[in-house]
Amino acid sequence: MAFDPATLVYDDRGLIPAIAQDHASGEVLMLAWMNEGAVARTLATGRVTYWSRSRQAFWVKGETSGHVQRLVEMRIDCDGDTILLLVDQTGPACHTNRRSCFYTGLRDGAEVELLRPEA
Amino acid sequence: MAFDPATLVYDDRGLIPAIAQDHASGEVLMLAWMNEGAVARTLATGRVTYWSRSRQAFWVKGETSGHVQRLVEMRIDCDGDTILLLVDQTGPACHTNRRSCFYTGLRDGAEVELLRPEA
Repeated sequence: MAFDPATLVYDDRGLIPAIAQDHASGEVLMLAWMNEGAVARTLATGRVTYWSRSRQAFWVKGETSGHVQRLVEMRIDCDGDTILLLVDQTGPACHTNRRSCFYTGLRDGAEVELLRPEA
Repeated sequence: MAFDPATLVYDDRGLIPAIAQDHASGEVLMLAWMNEGAVARTLATGRVTYWSRSRQAFWVKGETSGHVQRLVEMRIDCDGDTILLLVDQTGPACHTNRRSCFYTGLRDGAEVELLRPEA
């Protein structure tokens, strides 16, 4: 059936969490938020577009940094309240210049840096 | 440095999103929510424990179904407001009996079922 972004389940702020995963390596890169308009724009343009909670504006990933995310496939979960984005990530996904935002691991009760910023 | 679950960033409900990923295959299995107590219990027991928003109670994943998640490693993101769980998943992660909750893909504007329930 044809997909309508309005059928997803948004929270009381009108947002839904979106996980970005590298389509080739399977690495989980980041989690950010979308509203209905961001879902529609991402599907229409193939450029992953989030909703910035801090700026209260659309956030076309990589628009200023060049670290764009090209949408390979959007998936939705069983409850319709989470999005999984399979993406082709140019450069680092994290604003710290690391490949993934999940660069801190907990090992033996302590934080360990797993990734270094890229050059 | 030693990790304290209180240092994570919880939303106004006291919750933080947690992504579960198969540690071996890289498959993203589900997203659920934790509060500070669930983070602490997961780290202490090695059994992934969420906070059920519907039941308002701890949810030891697989406690009734047997489809447990053993924690391999917990990671946190750059903002401290999302958790990534690398897990060893027994059986299907989804309550629909599918391996992953993200079994619906959007292709050519339509919903496509990517995974079937397991036998």
